[in-house]
Amino acid sequence: MSSTDLARAYANSHAEQFREQLLDLIRIPSVSTEPQRAGDVRRAAEYLKADLLAAGVERAEILPTGGHPVVYAEWLKAGPNSKTVLIYGHYDVQPAEMADGWTSDPFVPVIRDNVIYARGASDDKGQAFIHAKVVESYLKGAGSAPVNIKVLYEGEEEIASVNLKAFIEANLDLLKADVVVISDTGMIDPDQPAVCVGVRGLTYMQIDVQAANIDLHSGQFGGIVHNPALALAQIIARFHDEDNHVTVPGFYDDVVMLTPTEREALKATDIPAERLKAETGIPEAWGEAGYTLRERIGTRPTLEINGLLSGWTGEGSKTVLPAKAMAKVSCRLVANQDPQKIYELVRDFVAEVAPAGVRVKVSLLSSGEAASMDINDPAMRAVARAYERGWGKAPIYLREGGSIPVVADFRKLLGVPVLLMGYGLNTDGPHGPDEHYSLAMFHRGIDTAIIFLEEISR
Amino acid sequence: MSSTDLARAYANSHAEQFREQLLDLIRIPSVSTEPQRAGDVRRAAEYLKADLLAAGVERAEILPTGGHPVVYAEWLKAGPNSKTVLIYGHYDVQPAEMADGWTSDPFVPVIRDNVIYARGASDDKGQAFIHAKVVESYLKGAGSAPVNIKVLYEGEEEIASVNLKAFIEANLDLLKADVVVISDTGMIDPDQPAVCVGVRGLTYMQIDVQAANIDLHSGQFGGIVHNPALALAQIIARFHDEDNHVTVPGFYDDVVMLTPTEREALKATDIPAERLKAETGIPEAWGEAGYTLRERIGTRPTLEINGLLSGWTGEGSKTVLPAKAMAKVSCRLVANQDPQKIYELVRDFVAEVAPAGVRVKVSLLSSGEAASMDINDPAMRAVARAYERGWGKAPIYLREGGSIPVVADFRKLLGVPVLLMGYGLNTDGPHGPDEHYSLAMFHRGIDTAIIFLEEISR
Repeated sequence: MSSTDLARAYANSHAEQFREQLLDLIRIPSVSTEPQRAGDVRRAAEYLKADLLAAGVERAEILPTGGHPVVYAEWLKAGPNSKTVLIYGHYDVQPAEMADGWTSDPFVPVIRDNVIYARGASDDKGQAFIHAKVVESYLKGAGSAPVNIKVLYEGEEEIASVNLKAFIEANLDLLKADVVVISDTGMIDPDQPAVCVGVRGLTYMQIDVQAANIDLHSGQFGGIVHNPALALAQIIARFHDEDNHVTVPGFYDDVVMLTPTEREALKATDIPAERLKAETGIPEAWGEAGYTLRERIGTRPTLEINGLLSGWTGEGSKTVLPAKAMAKVSCRLVANQDPQKIYELVRDFVAEVAPAGVRVKVSLLSSGEAASMDINDPAMRAVARAYERGWGKAPIYLREGGSIPVVADFRKLLGVPVLLMGYGLNTDGPHGPDEHYSLAMFHRGIDTAIIFLEEISR
Repeated sequence: MSSTDLARAYANSHAEQFREQLLDLIRIPSVSTEPQRAGDVRRAAEYLKADLLAAGVERAEILPTGGHPVVYAEWLKAGPNSKTVLIYGHYDVQPAEMADGWTSDPFVPVIRDNVIYARGASDDKGQAFIHAKVVESYLKGAGSAPVNIKVLYEGEEEIASVNLKAFIEANLDLLKADVVVISDTGMIDPDQPAVCVGVRGLTYMQIDVQAANIDLHSGQFGGIVHNPALALAQIIARFHDEDNHVTVPGFYDDVVMLTPTEREALKATDIPAERLKAETGIPEAWGEAGYTLRERIGTRPTLEINGLLSGWTGEGSKTVLPAKAMAKVSCRLVANQDPQKIYELVRDFVAEVAPAGVRVKVSLLSSGEAASMDINDPAMRAVARAYERGWGKAPIYLREGGSIPVVADFRKLLGVPVLLMGYGLNTDGPHGPDEHYSLAMFHRGIDTAIIFLEEISR
């Protein structure tokens, strides 16, 4: 038997162990955006380091960054004449609370109908852990792997990888590889493998509007002092025109338009409006006129309101005229939009449309660049062969609506292809309540990822 | 010495005791809108009942309503040939938390520069307690009062007196009086007494916008699912035109326009924009074109946003596409606007302008009618004489921006004049952080309120 066959057999016979280990990892509430969770974030890193050491890597360490640490591991015994694969994933997760609408505690994973329900089950613990188990399957099942392996698990992806770029820059030799593999994207259908060939960039901002210095009585001052909640709504309502185009001047200037051929190809993967309505419960689909639903999420930039806060938000009535109002606003960007430039355009637009009776500030909270991949690259063809053997079907190529800022960083700094082999499903509900991950996807993912290391080694 | 002189002397020599008792009352966090405070609300009622009994009333009881109870007390020994004055005040307060920007704990009153800082100090515990001390000054200082006295303290004014109308209807005999006195309004200047001759009505609503059933990933669904926070902002931005007129069709239909003479008279009390800016910190005054600042808050209806909530409102970034967005919206109304009709107009307008991609609901949370008073009524002339003697100056007549729903109810149900003798200052900051009340106003208020009972008895 080849080392790949031995690794596949090992993964098959250790499925239950893999699953239990994943549940242990998920139980650690490694929410990177909440300062009081820093200890939990570190615990998740410790868990992965110990797991990789037990799998048989030569080296596994927790390395500091300017924020939450990274886990780095390597097994280089395939030798200098073999290729080196750098695997990237993230062990931090989005915030989650029962009050957001979860059916069960987001950090107590439960399995219903062969699906794990928990925060991070899909994004990205489930998908990242696939690769730890690939390493274990090769090193314990076969005693070796067909390529050199480096693993980099990050703890700040959900806060826009704020320190990762500096870490890569400072460790170019350590991270040197022939290809980078990331599993943090989704398929439309469990039987149709999909490879992501484009991720959007991100500019995440906060708008703060202030009128009076303190909250006032709405009867005494309402009507003579501008209401910051009203002013904020008036500003936000200016962001889109009637066709739902973003009105910020210059917003679309650097957008690379798809060719007619590319648009034609995307039609095959379009999202039927009826299915979207059934899946989400919305009365009507929404979006930018002149583009299909698939184009809107994959190829067009957007401007979203992620949060609003002002005044009285409890039960019942409080006749307050708030002093302040706040909105979280983010733009998903496509190649070649520059996140910093988009921030400046939005900031200037807001200053321009802000009413005279309020003071307005727009702050940049985080950002990341967009990236796209070439489907004719040899590494991408190895990806296709891996899916054909492992999943039984050639993959389709998708542009992802989400953002993985590190993709552009790896491409630029390491100068190698970045392969987005996602083993999630678009319906996993990452970032929302009842995030879940199918155990079938987890195990099929391990199998295909094992085969991929053989295909990329050729 | 007359009974009035004896009462004034008693009040003067018991000033410190009165002050300490007021602080004790303020320490009870009787926040009527918070269900977990129901016990505190009742404690405040118990405190007032005990205080009035100790003052020497014939009867003081806590009477149930559909919600928080009322305190009722009476002293009727002036006899059937004397007038009866019904005093109304409220012992419940607005919510308050340090996080709102308070300098010190809102429920631990502190005195700085002869001013009490605490929630309810002015609205309305300080002003309501004036009358309890007037009763005590007469009954303990003089052994009698020149009029029969009834006292009604309510515990639900800050939640729009939701049960008081029914209580009055069910107790018309108990509450029968020749005049009603309310102290829950403010003066512009401590040396210029002011009587309120108009209060605005109120329609308080909540707008709920929902798109998807659950929060979604903004990268996966942003751009194809309408964002409810955006939709809410788009709805709110439709409420006013460029001149800040409310655009809801029919909104102004029942507004009684002031006569040119009335408008001319109001000019004397106009608010200089520079003073408003200095007092509140706003960069520019705001409001409906064509009206002075005084007219805008006293004589024109308004539509205010009292609260906004959607999605992620914590620190940093969360790329959520929220399922829901909520706004608290209230209208201040003038005579003859009907609060229920205004609710229906706003509800229908919102349904009309709501985007197709979201579901919208507008709920009525509370309401109250506007009212205005005749300055030539004999009771109002007694008010003027009381201020001339007690304060040393004839009062000016103001229209209040705020709402006291019970004013219209008393007028309609008891058929007698309702006198708004406010002993607060407009700068007391009710409903906001660092609400405060001047001890000088408290003691001058007691003195003038003692004199008023003599003047109204004539």
